[in-house]
Amino acid sequence: MKQFMDEDFLLTTETASKLYHEFAENVPIIDYHCHISPKEISENRHFSNITEVWLGGDHYKWRFMRSCGIDERFITGDASDKEKFMKWAECLSKAIGNPLYHWSHLELQRYFSFRKPLSAKTAEEAWEVCNEVLNRPDMGVRNIIKNSNVTLICTTDDPIDSLIYHDSIKADDSFDVKVLPAWRPDKAMNIEKDDYLTYIKALEDASRTGIHTFSDLINALKIRMDYFAERGCIVSDHALQYVMYAPAPATEIERIFTSRINGSAVTREEELKFKYAFMQAMAAEYSKRGWIMQLHYGCKRDNNKLKYDVFGPDSGFDSIYNYAPSNELADFLNALEEKHSLPKTILYSLNPVDNASIGTILGCFQDSTAVSKIQQGSAWWFNDHKSGMEEQLRSLANLGNLSGFVGMLTDSRSFLSYTRHEYFRRILCNMFGNLVESGEYPDDYDTLGAIVKNICYNNCINYFNFPVNPIS
Amino acid sequence: MKQFMDEDFLLTTETASKLYHEFAENVPIIDYHCHISPKEISENRHFSNITEVWLGGDHYKWRFMRSCGIDERFITGDASDKEKFMKWAECLSKAIGNPLYHWSHLELQRYFSFRKPLSAKTAEEAWEVCNEVLNRPDMGVRNIIKNSNVTLICTTDDPIDSLIYHDSIKADDSFDVKVLPAWRPDKAMNIEKDDYLTYIKALEDASRTGIHTFSDLINALKIRMDYFAERGCIVSDHALQYVMYAPAPATEIERIFTSRINGSAVTREEELKFKYAFMQAMAAEYSKRGWIMQLHYGCKRDNNKLKYDVFGPDSGFDSIYNYAPSNELADFLNALEEKHSLPKTILYSLNPVDNASIGTILGCFQDSTAVSKIQQGSAWWFNDHKSGMEEQLRSLANLGNLSGFVGMLTDSRSFLSYTRHEYFRRILCNMFGNLVESGEYPDDYDTLGAIVKNICYNNCINYFNFPVNPIS
Amino acid sequence: MKQFMDEDFLLTTETASKLYHEFAENVPIIDYHCHISPKEISENRHFSNITEVWLGGDHYKWRFMRSCGIDERFITGDASDKEKFMKWAECLSKAIGNPLYHWSHLELQRYFSFRKPLSAKTAEEAWEVCNEVLNRPDMGVRNIIKNSNVTLICTTDDPIDSLIYHDSIKADDSFDVKVLPAWRPDKAMNIEKDDYLTYIKALEDASRTGIHTFSDLINALKIRMDYFAERGCIVSDHALQYVMYAPAPATEIERIFTSRINGSAVTREEELKFKYAFMQAMAAEYSKRGWIMQLHYGCKRDNNKLKYDVFGPDSGFDSIYNYAPSNELADFLNALEEKHSLPKTILYSLNPVDNASIGTILGCFQDSTAVSKIQQGSAWWFNDHKSGMEEQLRSLANLGNLSGFVGMLTDSRSFLSYTRHEYFRRILCNMFGNLVESGEYPDDYDTLGAIVKNICYNNCINYFNFPVNPIS
Repeated sequence: MKQFMDEDFLLTTETASKLYHEFAENVPIIDYHCHISPKEISENRHFSNITEVWLGGDHYKWRFMRSCGIDERFITGDASDKEKFMKWAECLSKAIGNPLYHWSHLELQRYFSFRKPLSAKTAEEAWEVCNEVLNRPDMGVRNIIKNSNVTLICTTDDPIDSLIYHDSIKADDSFDVKVLPAWRPDKAMNIEKDDYLTYIKALEDASRTGIHTFSDLINALKIRMDYFAERGCIVSDHALQYVMYAPAPATEIERIFTSRINGSAVTREEELKFKYAFMQAMAAEYSKRGWIMQLHYGCKRDNNKLKYDVFGPDSGFDSIYNYAPSNELADFLNALEEKHSLPKTILYSLNPVDNASIGTILGCFQDSTAVSKIQQGSAWWFNDHKSGMEEQLRSLANLGNLSGFVGMLTDSRSFLSYTRHEYFRRILCNMFGNLVESGEYPDDYDTLGAIVKNICYNNCINYFNFPVNPIS
Repeated sequence: MKQFMDEDFLLTTETASKLYHEFAENVPIIDYHCHISPKEISENRHFSNITEVWLGGDHYKWRFMRSCGIDERFITGDASDKEKFMKWAECLSKAIGNPLYHWSHLELQRYFSFRKPLSAKTAEEAWEVCNEVLNRPDMGVRNIIKNSNVTLICTTDDPIDSLIYHDSIKADDSFDVKVLPAWRPDKAMNIEKDDYLTYIKALEDASRTGIHTFSDLINALKIRMDYFAERGCIVSDHALQYVMYAPAPATEIERIFTSRINGSAVTREEELKFKYAFMQAMAAEYSKRGWIMQLHYGCKRDNNKLKYDVFGPDSGFDSIYNYAPSNELADFLNALEEKHSLPKTILYSLNPVDNASIGTILGCFQDSTAVSKIQQGSAWWFNDHKSGMEEQLRSLANLGNLSGFVGMLTDSRSFLSYTRHEYFRRILCNMFGNLVESGEYPDDYDTLGAIVKNICYNNCINYFNFPVNPIS
Repeated sequence: MKQFMDEDFLLTTETASKLYHEFAENVPIIDYHCHISPKEISENRHFSNITEVWLGGDHYKWRFMRSCGIDERFITGDASDKEKFMKWAECLSKAIGNPLYHWSHLELQRYFSFRKPLSAKTAEEAWEVCNEVLNRPDMGVRNIIKNSNVTLICTTDDPIDSLIYHDSIKADDSFDVKVLPAWRPDKAMNIEKDDYLTYIKALEDASRTGIHTFSDLINALKIRMDYFAERGCIVSDHALQYVMYAPAPATEIERIFTSRINGSAVTREEELKFKYAFMQAMAAEYSKRGWIMQLHYGCKRDNNKLKYDVFGPDSGFDSIYNYAPSNELADFLNALEEKHSLPKTILYSLNPVDNASIGTILGCFQDSTAVSKIQQGSAWWFNDHKSGMEEQLRSLANLGNLSGFVGMLTDSRSFLSYTRHEYFRRILCNMFGNLVESGEYPDDYDTLGAIVKNICYNNCINYFNFPVNPIS
């Protein structure tokens, strides 16, 4: 029996252990997609207690507590931070098989050197230990990031964002981790939303140009893309229900947009046509600029309307949207390919049953302009657990070129979640260890070590063209 | 190599063995959803031979025999019971990897102390042994149930059912297992069926009220719900192709119902609107009464029309219906939540690919009114096998709170199938054993033991509010 | 740690090893579905180097090279054969977890006695060794087939094909492997294609009958079926996006066909109705003749239009089509059953998530006219890897009668791919070994050995009624 979460956690063979400790453990981290706040990095935020870090904005934990029947007062309500932590500790001890169990204990071990299982029994001690650490003067988020061996972060930013915090971080020589903006123009696409016109107005202001037509809209966005590019942006990101194929004449798109701008609502069909045209225009621009296009799809958000009215978005009420026609995804990519404007693209579906169809679509659009130009992204959100990652890795290996994979990202709002890269690396090395020990791949550590290091770090530098050096 | 189906069957680690034998093996059973006949319990039916029990109504076995190319004469036809058993034994020996292999041998071991593998070679002996046991005077179904350590059973009953057998079972002090009715109003919902009007007439008789409008229909059902409630009913159950979201004005629902009552057919669109309105009305009523709503969906029934004409329903000609839009399921639940009338709900899809989307939808509607108020039901029907259960447990653990799971049920028509609870418990303990032995969860037997006992027994008492005592 | 791909490759238990080496390894091969060229068999083609065999037409390898970012010049372009091989060797060493890694090394081991891992380092040596072997006078494709222990092959042939190569192979006493044509009338069904009229003209010529109506079309095909039957054909095959249920009156089908024949286009709805009528007519004919119907569906072909224009079909630009309504599949089969014209049928979906729904549909149409009359085909194309096969086998075992499975086929264009039968057999025996060693099935080698031999060879002889003798 292995000890609980020891140094060989998730490494079930000697080969896995060797691969992890020699080729993965000490490799730096690039977190090319996350939701941490550049403001908090700029201001070097300190946390006064572990509840602030852990329960301040983590909808994964909130969901789990609600599933345990905990009163909302102890989750997002007016209970004290300590009360909330005690409730969380009690819940966590029941989270057998849930990724929160591993994520939380990895964070306790790595950031707080607390190695006991967290439960009602150990909660008091953990509360003391974690808070003592957090209150050290060197425990600002900048040091947390640096001590996590991170060399580059891409945040997630709206086109109208001023990026002032990115500027200030860059200007500060005392912090050498690169913090780049990433381009997420969802609000400019979501024509069906009530506040679309308000957003368009804000975009006019940010881009200092009038937006009266669809062409104007794309033009305004290009102006902002220039602004982002000057600040090092090379990654975009889109949230879609599904990747649609809904071609329509340019005149129809202009008509839909003008009508919306003048206050009319759009039909579902018009919405899809507009979004398709929008995505095609964005993608063509990414292709021209050498930007990467990330498509996150398969999500139905804000399912519980009463709770949405209280808590707003991203508070734990989202689910899988299981309509994702593979033919529309393929036709969407082909339409770009035919115009020679298909950018490097990373596909993430929230529905794990899409793994196989995605894996087969990737292969239709690869070419010599990049290693694995079209990628399947790392197991995303609800799939970001051991079996989800194993399935994504196995599917990608079966259907594509796993050795060219750009690897892990946190997608997180938390400054402690870099241990998820460790989690991923252990799972990856364990998979390779199993293949080697079962005689399915040779024990050639030159090749294996290079593949491991590439997936953990170098591939994403080469793929994104990030301004950091690969490791050897 | 482990011995064939010995006391550590399916328990691949020491921890799994310890968990099962100390915390699960001797825990009583609540079978909160099944299809056994209350009449047969009331009359304490005895079986004259093993074919009656095994092949009398078990469409799983019939299907398997048909897949082996066996003539229908030996399945449901006029061959002798012994001939049928001999054919079954021959087929079973080929059922490598099929759950019938384990189910049958667990029943042979536990109820008949017959421990050899059943095959053409041992069939004669098994026939003798089983029949000798079945012919003992104490082998009525009541003793079978009691000796299976069952404390409570919910049958499945139509609103027009008189429940006289439930009354007589309750009145008989010599049998202390609780046998509660469960409410299954499918026939009142299936407006598209040819015999709908006949059913409505029967419901008028049972409820002693006229049914001329949709309001009348719901009212009649409430009268019957009162009747069921007086007899201890607290569980409902619905069979749906999929969980639909098809809101329509009350006037339109009335129009559809009136038109149907007057003999017209309904369109598919009308059918969906009507069923949605029906389900919303039922659910609101369950919420008010504190009843549990079970939704069984993803099934296409009676696919082979020629066979249906001969054998009727539930004879082995059903399949997965793979259209189950997650957005409609989420919107269905949200519509109830918005009206503050979402009851405790258990979701069962026949399609295992729905595991992940269900798991993510649960989390959107949990609150402090119950531990895991919205549940994913145990692997159902075609998924009720080792890998199906493992996948359901893993998915639920990854996405929700497995420790709050209400656990196993037989869904069976057979009085010997309580060993499926044993099967489930072994699989559950084996999963936990693997997590502990691989260092993914601590070897804290207080917590583990409590979680095991809760999933096996206590959770469902607390969740359903059954009138039996939890174990400590 | 097991040695790399040794004699117990993929056999993780002693039981698995025993089952494979005693009951599977030396069993002959029937390859009942493949795409090799009867012309090349007839002419006993020799290859001048390993690039010709491996990279001449293998879209799996092309896709993988493209995913590695290799220039098309080294894939299908004008680089020398040796340059292409060197690039392939470099790519292959990165293909950890990809079935190409195992397929390629099995071929190197079995056909060339080359046992080192292929990589840039060993590529030169492998090039020499393989080419030396290929240049031996006895290394024509006929000897390759015979030395692979193949007794019967079904090719894939268009109704207008003259089958002259089948005739010449049959007439040649020096080659005793049976090479039968298989009937694939896709072009006669694909009414929406631009070249449909050209094809109909060719079919008129081949059948020597005029085709002016849908009845004429079916009649012409029957004439060709007679021609195929005279040459031993008993297997058909169809490629479908999905199995549709779209009944329409005979007059409407005639109208659609006549309109198309006269040069009009068809709507999507007309296309589906026509194809449904076509498939029903074909199936009824197969049923009458005792032919097997294979349905390959779930594929979206030629996704990359620019590449299609250059390379044509089957060059590595296909993907999964994930729309496959299980209700239409069930209704399609039922429509045939109701007319007593459902032939023995093998269902292959390219989408692995269809495993469970297929498994449940099979069971609705089994009867005593054959063992497992409706089959789920072996893991197809993109699923033809270790985990894909394991999932298909497990799903089939859980839901149906695995012991009646007709087993493996290569579906290949290559004369070296018979080692995929070995791959399958190892995986099958390993699955059984695990079940035995974990106590889930008894170690009864009489039964196990018979099941293994039947799945590997005898089942398909009995099912297809092939003119070769079963083994004992």
